[in-house]
Amino acid sequence: MTAQATLARFREYMVGPARFMNLLSCFELGLVDALRKQPGMTAAELGAAVGAKPDAVEQLLYLPVKEGFVVHDETSGTYSLGALADVADVDLQRVLAFMDKIKVTTLRQLYYLTDSVRTGTIVGLKELYGFEGDLYAAMGVHADLRDSWSRLMDSVTDRIDPWFFGNIDIPAGAQVLDLAGHTGLGAIHTHRFKGSPGLRVTTFDLPEKREDCLRNFRQHGVDGTSSFIGGDVFQGVPEGFDVVLIKHFLNMFDKDDVLRILNAVHASLEVGGQVHILVPIYAENIKESWSVDYYPSFFLGCATGQGGPQKLSTFRSWLEEAGFTVTGEMSQDPAELPPDALPLQGILSATKTG
Amino acid sequence: MTAQATLARFREYMVGPARFMNLLSCFELGLVDALRKQPGMTAAELGAAVGAKPDAVEQLLYLPVKEGFVVHDETSGTYSLGALADVADVDLQRVLAFMDKIKVTTLRQLYYLTDSVRTGTIVGLKELYGFEGDLYAAMGVHADLRDSWSRLMDSVTDRIDPWFFGNIDIPAGAQVLDLAGHTGLGAIHTHRFKGSPGLRVTTFDLPEKREDCLRNFRQHGVDGTSSFIGGDVFQGVPEGFDVVLIKHFLNMFDKDDVLRILNAVHASLEVGGQVHILVPIYAENIKESWSVDYYPSFFLGCATGQGGPQKLSTFRSWLEEAGFTVTGEMSQDPAELPPDALPLQGILSATKTG
Repeated sequence: MTAQATLARFREYMVGPARFMNLLSCFELGLVDALRKQPGMTAAELGAAVGAKPDAVEQLLYLPVKEGFVVHDETSGTYSLGALADVADVDLQRVLAFMDKIKVTTLRQLYYLTDSVRTGTIVGLKELYGFEGDLYAAMGVHADLRDSWSRLMDSVTDRIDPWFFGNIDIPAGAQVLDLAGHTGLGAIHTHRFKGSPGLRVTTFDLPEKREDCLRNFRQHGVDGTSSFIGGDVFQGVPEGFDVVLIKHFLNMFDKDDVLRILNAVHASLEVGGQVHILVPIYAENIKESWSVDYYPSFFLGCATGQGGPQKLSTFRSWLEEAGFTVTGEMSQDPAELPPDALPLQGILSATKTG
Repeated sequence: MTAQATLARFREYMVGPARFMNLLSCFELGLVDALRKQPGMTAAELGAAVGAKPDAVEQLLYLPVKEGFVVHDETSGTYSLGALADVADVDLQRVLAFMDKIKVTTLRQLYYLTDSVRTGTIVGLKELYGFEGDLYAAMGVHADLRDSWSRLMDSVTDRIDPWFFGNIDIPAGAQVLDLAGHTGLGAIHTHRFKGSPGLRVTTFDLPEKREDCLRNFRQHGVDGTSSFIGGDVFQGVPEGFDVVLIKHFLNMFDKDDVLRILNAVHASLEVGGQVHILVPIYAENIKESWSVDYYPSFFLGCATGQGGPQKLSTFRSWLEEAGFTVTGEMSQDPAELPPDALPLQGILSATKTG
């Protein structure tokens, strides 16, 4: 890579924030919807339609025109959808939900990334919200963070859980612990996708989740076969289970805490007990990873101030360090994900053999 | 452009903010300096050197490793500079000054872009600083904005003004008005680059700039040949000048106000009077413009809530609409700018012919 090529690449980085919000703002203002409803509008007509000055509409549409997302007819001075017209609505909604999540949980917070890394705390939440704690706790207090996150994650979980449960084995009638199982969705999905006579799933999470969790169990008709145990994984993991699920949790911690968790799970199991882990990962070949373009700064500067995805091979070595025998591992196939996908999920299964 | 290609392009947009701060944070933390001083450090050694946890160092270096900016030796677990080692320090400092300006004046403010466009005000400055007004006024109050901006703009002006004055004609002994001339730098440069017996330059700007301006004149030894007039361009332009300079000003306004300014300048001049405009522009072919990736959202969401660069042909048509005869126009040659350059500057010269 020549110095000239490096400098050109820097320019791509420099325009990143502005490009992001310019595009998103075209959707937020309703410019894209207006052009979908009525192609061939002028800047003046668009400005009147969305409540903005025509001059500002022209400025905001330069970039989508450059990209070919929108087409500008210089003779008539009108705009129409270009490449955007061909994107299916379901795809567009998925992208926009993710962009909104980036805007609300990430964009401003990133300003404080360096301080967050130095302190291991989310300085952005303190500065912007006066909140001390991580993003997941902040979502309990701040509706804007929670709403944006939920819109995205509900659809993500709906896509990921069938894949996860389709690729792990849960013996009939097993006693399953869903570690850090939040308000019970993992337990509900375990019954839906791996239901069997005698199967019992226990959600283990902080005590304050109990009521929401039990209500969810009742609403989904699994309250007879599900339980909730309140506790803190760093104080100990409940015993007496055949299978422990750890979904979207290990990536929130640095190695030392991941090992504390895995050691505690190992100690809680009898020989033959199993653990199944669902976790966002980086591709083994970092050059092919898209997750590394987003998740390091998201976790360090916006989510937890620590943790982040790891390569599947790293999580495997940590499982082995905790005494487990890894029995299976797999990654999503990037080729089967939509071209806009940022997260890549991995599954690791392991057994306590001694 | 297929829908798949559009979605892939969206992904580039989605990672823009995170990529930007991940890279900048590697510099801010001192990771790059540490590796320049001592190549081959582990994450633990780097963490100790910069005051961050090794886990966080690993996360932050994934992206530079993906890009080839930094090289990771998986066997030894050590990092060294890759492509970054070949970038000259002067180039790196220029890029970092611009990145800091983007971080401080743009990154957080962009969150409010849509509201800023709707209101024509910089909502981000209100929300983040409690400041009502534009960025240029906010810099008078908030040192963080001013410092970051000044570091960048001082070097920019040093590069641009020789090019501007090298491409305009100022008759010997002319009476020159520098419209919105701030605290006198344009006047000082006029003397430096276009000095002639009898040349007199008057800086015209808001009255509160008078003292700083006169002090600058004295410091540069041009107080005998320079003056300051306090006033507001929208209340009228002083008369009696042969040449009016309008540098980096028209881009701060929408068309209606640009025309008010140009009309006022036209009215202030005698027939034969000249105006020379220096202004950031978009390339005539938007597809080749890099300015459109940054400046629309910067001006609308972070600087003035209006305005922005225009194509040279647009500024020309506005000059003609104000009654001027355009006598010359030129653009910087993008091929002669550094590969990281975002702004593109244009010059327009015009005469009052009737």
